[in-house]
Amino acid sequence: MKVQAAVFRKAGEPLVVEEVELRKPQAGEILVKIRASGICHSDISVQNGTMPIPPPMVLGHEGAGEVVEVGEGVTSVAVGDHVILNNVPECGKCPQCHNPRTNLCIESGRNVLTTPVLRNSKYRPFFKTAEGKDATTLMTAGTFATHSLIDAHTVTPIPKDIPFEEAALIACGVITGIGSTHYAAHVSPGSSVAVFGIGSVGLNVIQGAKIAGATVILALDILDSKEAVARQFGATHFINPSKLEGATLHSKIAEILGGSIFVDFAFEATGNTGVLQTAVSIVHPLSGEVVAVGIPHFTSETKFPGPTFSLGRTLRGVLFGNAKSITVTKQIVEWYKAGKIQVKPLITHRLTLQEVNKGMELLAKGEAVRPVILFD
Amino acid sequence: MKVQAAVFRKAGEPLVVEEVELRKPQAGEILVKIRASGICHSDISVQNGTMPIPPPMVLGHEGAGEVVEVGEGVTSVAVGDHVILNNVPECGKCPQCHNPRTNLCIESGRNVLTTPVLRNSKYRPFFKTAEGKDATTLMTAGTFATHSLIDAHTVTPIPKDIPFEEAALIACGVITGIGSTHYAAHVSPGSSVAVFGIGSVGLNVIQGAKIAGATVILALDILDSKEAVARQFGATHFINPSKLEGATLHSKIAEILGGSIFVDFAFEATGNTGVLQTAVSIVHPLSGEVVAVGIPHFTSETKFPGPTFSLGRTLRGVLFGNAKSITVTKQIVEWYKAGKIQVKPLITHRLTLQEVNKGMELLAKGEAVRPVILFD
Repeated sequence: MKVQAAVFRKAGEPLVVEEVELRKPQAGEILVKIRASGICHSDISVQNGTMPIPPPMVLGHEGAGEVVEVGEGVTSVAVGDHVILNNVPECGKCPQCHNPRTNLCIESGRNVLTTPVLRNSKYRPFFKTAEGKDATTLMTAGTFATHSLIDAHTVTPIPKDIPFEEAALIACGVITGIGSTHYAAHVSPGSSVAVFGIGSVGLNVIQGAKIAGATVILALDILDSKEAVARQFGATHFINPSKLEGATLHSKIAEILGGSIFVDFAFEATGNTGVLQTAVSIVHPLSGEVVAVGIPHFTSETKFPGPTFSLGRTLRGVLFGNAKSITVTKQIVEWYKAGKIQVKPLITHRLTLQEVNKGMELLAKGEAVRPVILFD
Repeated sequence: MKVQAAVFRKAGEPLVVEEVELRKPQAGEILVKIRASGICHSDISVQNGTMPIPPPMVLGHEGAGEVVEVGEGVTSVAVGDHVILNNVPECGKCPQCHNPRTNLCIESGRNVLTTPVLRNSKYRPFFKTAEGKDATTLMTAGTFATHSLIDAHTVTPIPKDIPFEEAALIACGVITGIGSTHYAAHVSPGSSVAVFGIGSVGLNVIQGAKIAGATVILALDILDSKEAVARQFGATHFINPSKLEGATLHSKIAEILGGSIFVDFAFEATGNTGVLQTAVSIVHPLSGEVVAVGIPHFTSETKFPGPTFSLGRTLRGVLFGNAKSITVTKQIVEWYKAGKIQVKPLITHRLTLQEVNKGMELLAKGEAVRPVILFD
């Protein structure tokens, strides 16, 4: 079928909204009419070349929609179901799905970011451009399109009363942020938490830390405009690290904590290696944990003084918050239904697919928390 | 009282075995007649300037002996008790003793390595050199001396049938190695483990991994002579990374694991930042854990490609194996008594205090696993 999609055609250039061909769902796959897709920094990272992925590719990986057709053998979802499109599969059977220490199903492939997921699977790619070239999809999803195909074990069915625009955001920003506090760092009640980078992910780290019982939640961003929304999500303090005015980050922390210059947990949600180094330096040398949530540029380097970890610091990487995709999406949907987390205030802009590049630009400049593309 | 001690007087020069003055035990302190002291790489690190600690200092921090006098208020140990001298206190009352995420009692001070422990305490230092200068002690102990003073909550009483030479080694090498597998990495049954650096600590990581149920224990050392002892302690495989002969570490691991080029856990027990980088590169990118057991040079730097941790690797630092000193020493003594761990084969050389520099040299060259100084 012919569908409209925003296609990444060349690094550094705007996406091209064009007609592409989407094939029929094969065994195990489902066809989803996309109803909403968040725009995420990872989409920008592909578009600007930070993640070196070869074009053409249909971007968008934070989406929700309605199942309109199912391939052979699909029993877990049916036509008419509302679903969140997850970014990694959860087959539930492989050693990695059974391993409590990883969230990445073996079907994700060895390197989910540099190689489009399942690139070499017999089923993929789904899209063909007008000139007949295969177009891959970002992180299994490809939600910058009116319709997309996805494996049945890469979606989570959701109740029909959840607005699509909010459900979409759960797919990436919400699960990554809350997952990081619950499935990576295990933030404990009474602890102090610093969050670097107050975008959608950072705000979800904040509300995850709040659910986990942290009593000091320090939000850090170089844009003062982020303070209000950080506080709305649960931050108890805000620091603009570019405006320390003679103080140091350590002295500011000492003011907040009443003496200690170190926090218990820090979350790096910008993808900047310099910020990651700072995050490591402000956690307690004996027991502090840093979660590297943001994804640094592939050619970047992180440097630490040799003995940084000698006393007991921990640095942990995560992808999608170390959360098993479907299992944890269900948990988060429950929290959402119970009013424990807020999603709507993350949405700062509602756009059409034609306006996708405008949304990317607003996000890149920090003027948007989450722009969402809405489809009819 | 006058005692003989091996004193660190100048970085890069041999220790000086000389008479020093040891004061009377004050409240909370005990006087211990040292009976055995292991020589550890950390002693060398102070002597050669890797750890920039100002002289004079009585080195030695892996010791056992007999209590000969107790200060006011000491009830936990009595004259005649045999004790292991721990490297950090465990007061059992402070927030850090109650925090399951750190082993370092608040009395350890903020930086146990660069500042001699309790340096500014009203009780320290214990020793005075012939010219009347205060001499500090390494890691609370100062066991390169015929007698030493130590706080009562920094020793573990032990049964009298444990030979002092074996008890001494539990204080540092054994607790650090086994602690790292049990209290830092939580090695799981069936997992694969790589251990870099087959000294006393590395061998104890190996036996800790074995107790924890690891099925592949890969020992790595640039000295082929370490293979036999590594296997004696439980290593299932040995690789000399300086003799890969066209293979790569990844391809060697694939041979061992039957396909996967990554191990579940890696332990860095050399203190070399380049080795740490290698250790990080061979653990599974989704779920692998690296424990930095060795202490890198204070001016060194560790570098990682930006996205090293993006998928889910963990890097954790430890000091003394993340083990609460007295609590875990008691556990390890029980394992020793039950025959679950071996200590005696770690001892490769028995020396007198006068021969301390010879022992340091043998250890530095990798010709000794553990030289032990025995006192009458």
